[in-house]
Amino acid sequence: MFSKETYINRRNELKNKINNGIVLITGNNDAPMNYKSNTYHFRQDSTFLYFFGIDLQNLAGVIDIDNNEEILFGDDYTIDDIIWMGPQTSLKDKAAGAGIEKTRPFAELFEYIRDAAAKKRTIHFTPPYRGENIMLLADLLNIHHREVEKNASLELTKACIDLRSIKEPCEIEEMERHMSTAWEMHTTAMRMARPGISEQEITGAIEGVSMSGGGMVSFPVICSVRGETLHNHYHGNTLKEGDLLLTDAGSESPLHYATDHTRTTPVSGKFTETQRQVYQIVLDANNKAREATRPGVPYRDVHLLACKVIASGLKELGLMKGDPDEAVNAGAHALFMPHGLGHMIGLDVHDMEDYDDTLVGYDDEIKRSSQFGLAALRLGRRLQPGFTITNEPGIYFIPALIDNWKAENKFPQFLNYEKIEAFKGFGGIRLEDDILVTGDGCRILGERIPITIEEVEAIAGKGAVK
Amino acid sequence: MFSKETYINRRNELKNKINNGIVLITGNNDAPMNYKSNTYHFRQDSTFLYFFGIDLQNLAGVIDIDNNEEILFGDDYTIDDIIWMGPQTSLKDKAAGAGIEKTRPFAELFEYIRDAAAKKRTIHFTPPYRGENIMLLADLLNIHHREVEKNASLELTKACIDLRSIKEPCEIEEMERHMSTAWEMHTTAMRMARPGISEQEITGAIEGVSMSGGGMVSFPVICSVRGETLHNHYHGNTLKEGDLLLTDAGSESPLHYATDHTRTTPVSGKFTETQRQVYQIVLDANNKAREATRPGVPYRDVHLLACKVIASGLKELGLMKGDPDEAVNAGAHALFMPHGLGHMIGLDVHDMEDYDDTLVGYDDEIKRSSQFGLAALRLGRRLQPGFTITNEPGIYFIPALIDNWKAENKFPQFLNYEKIEAFKGFGGIRLEDDILVTGDGCRILGERIPITIEEVEAIAGKGAVK
Ligand SMILES: [Mn+2]
Ligand SMILES: [Mn+2]
Repeated sequence: MFSKETYINRRNELKNKINNGIVLITGNNDAPMNYKSNTYHFRQDSTFLYFFGIDLQNLAGVIDIDNNEEILFGDDYTIDDIIWMGPQTSLKDKAAGAGIEKTRPFAELFEYIRDAAAKKRTIHFTPPYRGENIMLLADLLNIHHREVEKNASLELTKACIDLRSIKEPCEIEEMERHMSTAWEMHTTAMRMARPGISEQEITGAIEGVSMSGGGMVSFPVICSVRGETLHNHYHGNTLKEGDLLLTDAGSESPLHYATDHTRTTPVSGKFTETQRQVYQIVLDANNKAREATRPGVPYRDVHLLACKVIASGLKELGLMKGDPDEAVNAGAHALFMPHGLGHMIGLDVHDMEDYDDTLVGYDDEIKRSSQFGLAALRLGRRLQPGFTITNEPGIYFIPALIDNWKAENKFPQFLNYEKIEAFKGFGGIRLEDDILVTGDGCRILGERIPITIEEVEAIAGKGAVK
Repeated sequence: MFSKETYINRRNELKNKINNGIVLITGNNDAPMNYKSNTYHFRQDSTFLYFFGIDLQNLAGVIDIDNNEEILFGDDYTIDDIIWMGPQTSLKDKAAGAGIEKTRPFAELFEYIRDAAAKKRTIHFTPPYRGENIMLLADLLNIHHREVEKNASLELTKACIDLRSIKEPCEIEEMERHMSTAWEMHTTAMRMARPGISEQEITGAIEGVSMSGGGMVSFPVICSVRGETLHNHYHGNTLKEGDLLLTDAGSESPLHYATDHTRTTPVSGKFTETQRQVYQIVLDANNKAREATRPGVPYRDVHLLACKVIASGLKELGLMKGDPDEAVNAGAHALFMPHGLGHMIGLDVHDMEDYDDTLVGYDDEIKRSSQFGLAALRLGRRLQPGFTITNEPGIYFIPALIDNWKAENKFPQFLNYEKIEAFKGFGGIRLEDDILVTGDGCRILGERIPITIEEVEAIAGKGAVK
């Protein structure tokens, strides 16, 4: 946990932003895999972590705005719990660590909320995403489980986004400290990439590196020679000469801050001439995007800049034609880069996505586009110092999408389908860094994972260290 | 998947056991970690795997007993799904692989169940354990989510237990094939155990071995120098000279059959004299239990035999006194072994525990005891050829439990508290194998993981291979 003052301050800031009522923040419980007591690695709710910091099951925090009162609801452990799970801290001590004085048994939360509801007080909660918490809220509020989501508080959600968007120094420190695990994961994958090894073996190894570094992976690992499939969780392929291995993976720090990087490695150890050309375009897009990243600039504009670098590069390769700016404005480049340049990152890899990603990434000034490709951009609004974001341009050759567009003859003025056809087996390249927006620009968090063609070729397939 | 005949046969067997109505088997969906689209590794429901075999999200299978009809409800993939997740098999083809001809869109399941309910037909389902499926069943049956569990079908549950208790040759083959991954996980942990390394690093490494071997861990890894905490998922300790590292870990095979083994390794590479004595008692209990394991014998009796070996051994060490048989009948040994000797293992590490572990492990003849220790035994009924079970005796020195019993002066005729007091920092030892009940006895599945004192000392701390 951070210092108790950190949590006290955050709750005070929240109180300043909410007019009245009660803020109810339910923690997560263990999530069953195949039966109730066989559970996944516990992952606490991020909103609960942000305001209460306690990384344990079966808790709920209440912030009474009107009476300036804070209560932690939970239960102390029994002797049976101690036999099976070891000695436990008391609820009182847990609460004190977060600067909370009042604790009550979990069961009393029902009466507490019923009383508040009877007095017509507003009960604020953010949109729940786990079935168990949806049912808990339904029971607490005495409404049908399908009615829960629409009763979530927009006022609370917006207040949380305001606070969590700007990372505090202690958060940046925690994130930066954990970047060494991200570095280790990715260089391990790069070193292991060689013909004959399976995607599954590399995936297992880097999940192990993440666990050894302190926490579980921050999202399901993407580690595939079919990099053109954007969220490929299939790891059944064996790497072969000429393949490109795309690894998009991250780790949770001990306090559950995420890392999220992508690297693309030539399985043969050296890029082919064509791979080298496409790789360099993606790397240029990444670097130019970072150079344009500074406070006050809408990230949508940085996204469009990266897309234009890609369109220009693909024009040079003969895959696109016409004016690159016009091509990007029309959305023709999205055949090759159908996703956004990046997203906020923090306690969640797509930070605060449980709240609503349009509320997180857009505002009254910058609205989300509905254009294919640009619509997938999660962060469009103006950058501020303290934002932590990803920068992840890519170029993909997705056979199904190419067939689709070609059949519809989409953007014939910008796309050279005949040439594109020849790239159908190419796969995909994505290069992703985590960056911090500073007072006058930005910087990469942690030591940069090898990314230039020379750096990548220097370690590709060189074998795991130790 | 197994052959489609396997699934057809299983469903036919099930039809023979259910009188009438509709069997509804809901598959699992992706389980959210910290927001809806950031999910844990997908784990299909075991009942669905058993009868339909399809390892994918958002499916439900229906077996209409009265009309001998089988339908798979699910949806085909869209072009967006293909961009993000790659080319997908059609629902028709998935169904065909399980020997099912009829498929319908998932949304039609609501109408289908509503019709059946209107006709007062029985809708059989096993007890759900995931929030999302509880809410789905509530919506399908138009009942409150708190009413779902009590409407589960005892008839279906018992029929599933009957079928799944006896493993088919293809299941035994699959389990046995995956035992090499279990062997690799445990020998890796034993080799890594040395002063100065963290529990977390070993845990990460063996989770990586599991993933590389084809699947996720079959339950949260226990890897702790505080082995006396039975389900210790804390991995924050650093190993030091004289510690015992208890590792209880398993892996899921590609078809989701579990392994579950425990080994206990001396961190210094050699056991101390006292550790050696206690270790040998546990190993004797394990071996004697296995020698007594054969068809027709209640596993409760094998459990009690193992407990008596432990009580005799501890008497020789001066920790217990009086007649070991009487001590075990009274339950005095449970201070040291408060858990059961074993459980069924198969598609679940505690096989079929979602159904109800007393229904799985007991019957009209052998009833579950309420005595502390024996009550925790999951499998008590008579063994049959084809059962796959665990054999996992242990001896633990749990400070909180010792304090508790001593304060109450429990079993002074059998327990020598003064001597026990000196063992408070000892920790715990457990030795667990997976075994198959054969026609006339039993055998260990796979090559036995090093277990004798000589075998363990030969590899303890020798460093990970490769
Ligand atoms: Mn990302
Ligand atoms: Mn076990």
